[in-house]
Amino acid sequence: MGGDQAPAVVVQGALEAVRESSGRVSVILVGREQAIESELQKHAPAAAESKIAGTLRVAHADDVIEMLDAPNSALKSKKNSSIAVGLALHRDGKADAFVSAGNTGAVLSASTLILGRIKGIGRPTIGALFPTAKHSPCLLLDAGANVDCRARHLYEFALMGSAYIGAMFGTPRPAVGLLSIGEEEVKGNEVTLEAFRLLRDAPIHFVGNVEGRDILKGEVDVVVCDGFVGNILLKFGESMPGFLKAKFVRYASRGPRQKLVALMARGGLRSVMKEMDYQEAGGVPLLGVNGVSIIGHGGSTPLAIKNMILLAAKTVVQDVNGKIQDSLHRSKHGEE
Amino acid sequence: MGGDQAPAVVVQGALEAVRESSGRVSVILVGREQAIESELQKHAPAAAESKIAGTLRVAHADDVIEMLDAPNSALKSKKNSSIAVGLALHRDGKADAFVSAGNTGAVLSASTLILGRIKGIGRPTIGALFPTAKHSPCLLLDAGANVDCRARHLYEFALMGSAYIGAMFGTPRPAVGLLSIGEEEVKGNEVTLEAFRLLRDAPIHFVGNVEGRDILKGEVDVVVCDGFVGNILLKFGESMPGFLKAKFVRYASRGPRQKLVALMARGGLRSVMKEMDYQEAGGVPLLGVNGVSIIGHGGSTPLAIKNMILLAAKTVVQDVNGKIQDSLHRSKHGEE
Repeated sequence: MGGDQAPAVVVQGALEAVRESSGRVSVILVGREQAIESELQKHAPAAAESKIAGTLRVAHADDVIEMLDAPNSALKSKKNSSIAVGLALHRDGKADAFVSAGNTGAVLSASTLILGRIKGIGRPTIGALFPTAKHSPCLLLDAGANVDCRARHLYEFALMGSAYIGAMFGTPRPAVGLLSIGEEEVKGNEVTLEAFRLLRDAPIHFVGNVEGRDILKGEVDVVVCDGFVGNILLKFGESMPGFLKAKFVRYASRGPRQKLVALMARGGLRSVMKEMDYQEAGGVPLLGVNGVSIIGHGGSTPLAIKNMILLAAKTVVQDVNGKIQDSLHRSKHGEE
Repeated sequence: MGGDQAPAVVVQGALEAVRESSGRVSVILVGREQAIESELQKHAPAAAESKIAGTLRVAHADDVIEMLDAPNSALKSKKNSSIAVGLALHRDGKADAFVSAGNTGAVLSASTLILGRIKGIGRPTIGALFPTAKHSPCLLLDAGANVDCRARHLYEFALMGSAYIGAMFGTPRPAVGLLSIGEEEVKGNEVTLEAFRLLRDAPIHFVGNVEGRDILKGEVDVVVCDGFVGNILLKFGESMPGFLKAKFVRYASRGPRQKLVALMARGGLRSVMKEMDYQEAGGVPLLGVNGVSIIGHGGSTPLAIKNMILLAAKTVVQDVNGKIQDSLHRSKHGEE
C-alpha cells in the first residue's frame, strides 16, 4: 500500500519482478486484499495468472500508513498497517525480505522495532547510491536516517557499507572514505576526527578523509557521513538535473543557433541524467537490522518497484547481513 | 604573492581592475618589490604606465606564505608576509580593503587577528555564491571557515548574509533559509533546531528550513549552515562539471550519432558550466571582520583577480559592514 500510487504501481512492479525472475522470486503483496486483487485482475489476465500461480499471493492488512502520517504515532494507532504486517511476516520467517515505497520514517522505525538490530550495531542506516564518473556507483551512508551521529556510529556505517558493496557488487576490497573538509587527518569536525581514529583500526580498506568533490569521481566505493550531511548532499544532487534543464532552456532562448544546439544536446543530456535518477536503482537498503528491508521513493514507478524487489532478493542471496556480522567480529571495536 | 601563479597573475588582474574602473579603483600590490616591478614592466609598457600612475603602487613585503604552509605557524614565523603587511595597511587606513588569492586559512586567521571582529560577531564567516535556476545566485554561508558551529553562530551568519545580499545585489528583503533535512520546524539536528528558534525573532526575512534541493532552485537568497556541511556541498557542486564532462565523453563513445550529439552539445554545456565556475565570480567575502577581506581561489586567473578587486571596491562603497552592524543593533540577540 506504500507509495503515491499504491496499490496499482506496486502490483505492476511485483508482477514484473516475478516475470523477470521467471518465478525464482515470489512476492507476497501485503495490504487491503480487495484493492490488490482488483489490480491483479487488471494486469494479470487469466492466462498469465496460471503461470504466476504460487509466485504471487496476497496477505491482508487493514490499515494504511499514509505518506504524510507522523511515523511513530501512525505505527501506534495503525497496528495492522501493511508495513507492520509485512515486517512481521519477514520476522516470522514467512518472507525472506521486506520492500516498501511507503512512508520512509515509518518503514525505518518499524523495521528497527520489529526486526531488531544486528548485535553490535547502534544505529541502522540508510545508504544512497551516487553515480560516478567511473562505472561503479558510490555508496553514501548515512543518507538521512541518523542525525547527531557519534564517531562510533560512523564507524559502524563504514563496516556496513563495505560489507554491502563487497557482497552486492563483488568488489574485493571496497575503498571506504570518511567525508570531511580536507584530506589530512587533522581536518574535520569533532566527530569525524574521532571517527578517523576508530576507522584506522577497522577491518576494512579505509582510505582516510575524502572531500565533497570525491563522491562523483568514483575513486572510493563507500563514503561515510552523518545523516544530516548525507541527506542534504543527496537532495542537492537530485536537484541537479532540474537545474541543468532550466539553464539549457535559458540558453536555448538566446537565439536560433542556441536553440538548435540545445535541441541536439537534449538526447545526450537526457541519457546522462538518467544515470542520476533514483527510479533506475529502485530503492535503498536499510542496513543494520536483523533482516532485509528495502526502502523506495514514494514516487516509485513499476520499474522502480521491480528493481527494489530484485534488489531485496539479491541482498538475501548474497548474505549481506552475514558479511556485516563477520566484519563486526573481526573488529576491535565490535563489542563496544 | 598569493595564488598558484603569483605575482604574474595577480599583477595582470590588478592592471585590468585599474583599467576597467578607469582609475577609480587604485591598487597597492603587496609583496616582493623586485618580482612585482618586473611583472609590471612586462604588462604595463611605458606609455600605459603614465596613465595608471597614481592608481597602482607597490608595498614591499619580504615573506611569502606558501599555499601549503600551515596557516597559524606560518603567520608566526613569517611576520612580514604579504598577507600580514597588506592587512596591516587596511587596518591602518592606508587601504580600504584587502584581497588575496593566497593560503585561505592564513588569510582567514590573519584577517580576524589583524582587523578584529565586528562587535557582536562570534565567528567571521566565508560565504560562497551558488548559481541557481533563476537569475540571482544563492549565498551559502558558512562555506568552510567554521566547523562545530553553535546555534548562535548560524544566527549571526544569517544576519551577515542578509546584509551582504541586500547591500551588494540590491535585494530589498533577502529570503534567508536554514539548511536542514526537512521543511518542518521539527526537522533537523540539535544545532539547527535551536538556530531555528533564534532565527524566528531575527530582524531579517527568515523563511524557515530549506533542503539540499532548494539551493539551486533560487527561491532563497541566503542559505545558512555549519561550515562542515557548506564546504562539502561547495566542493560537491564544483565537481559537477567534471562529472558531466566524463559522462558526455562516455556517451559520445557509444557511436557516431552520439558523438555528433555530444559535439553539438558541447557549446551549450560549456556555456551552462561557465556559470558554475568560481573564476567568474572572483572571490568570496569574509564577513564579520572589521574591514573588507576578499578571499580568492589559489588557481585564480587574471579575470578572477580583477573581479575580486572590483568586488572589494563595491563591498566598501555599499558599506556592507555598516549594514551588518545595523542588523545586529536591531537584533534581540545582538548583545549575547
